[in-house]
Amino acid sequence: MRWHILSIGKPKLSFAATGIADYAGRLNPFAQIKSETLKAGTREAESAALLERSTGMFRIVLDERGDHITSRALAAKIDTWEQRSVKNVAVIIGGADGHTEELRRSADWLWSLSKLTFQHELALLVTLEQLYRAYTIKAGLPYHRD
Amino acid sequence: MRWHILSIGKPKLSFAATGIADYAGRLNPFAQIKSETLKAGTREAESAALLERSTGMFRIVLDERGDHITSRALAAKIDTWEQRSVKNVAVIIGGADGHTEELRRSADWLWSLSKLTFQHELALLVTLEQLYRAYTIKAGLPYHRD
Repeated sequence: MRWHILSIGKPKLSFAATGIADYAGRLNPFAQIKSETLKAGTREAESAALLERSTGMFRIVLDERGDHITSRALAAKIDTWEQRSVKNVAVIIGGADGHTEELRRSADWLWSLSKLTFQHELALLVTLEQLYRAYTIKAGLPYHRD
Repeated sequence: MRWHILSIGKPKLSFAATGIADYAGRLNPFAQIKSETLKAGTREAESAALLERSTGMFRIVLDERGDHITSRALAAKIDTWEQRSVKNVAVIIGGADGHTEELRRSADWLWSLSKLTFQHELALLVTLEQLYRAYTIKAGLPYHRD
């Protein structure tokens, strides 16, 4: 499965960029991860660009209205998508003003990391750690403990 | 208010340590933050050390059974604690095996960042960003947007 992590705006937190690269490297044996940032603009322009860039992909949209699930449940979801032969997954992280209703409606899954609001580069970092955790759970590796 | 962030085990993720130091610095105008790591051991030994180290402090224990709240609600909680003249707050992050029942019972507040399991240095990083966000909300600064 190929993961396309799509977010908005130039990265500002260098420690987050280092962490994101770290988890992308650790994920390498399990899945391909490509992180891409799109230009900031109005909410409408950002959502339109994210929609365009994820055309044909399975869309996971990070949104405060989304589902709250455990790391084990995320691993189980990835299993399901693999069984359904999903090839390209887009993880879509909005800009400061969030997503348009159109982008939300186009989502295959709406996911909420937390009730808390995370700076969006931290949201990206947390997402990558969750993908890594999910793949280690799937592989039966000891990284995740209950 | 003085915040004592207590966690277990030597830090392993250097990017997380950089991020934690970054937010501790940003928090400086608002509150004193001291981060301290205690030695890893059995769950009982870790919880006993965390309990001992936080004696006399208002105890916030990070635990999966805790409350899920928004960043704005966290800011409101800090206001309440300030009104109650809380001086020293301990934020207690457990080791890999979590907390003992005794430590949980001693908590003034049980807080859950997410249903997801975060690597504990990421939990620390997220916690510091939430404290920073809460203080900017209280100060009416533009960092947080709904």
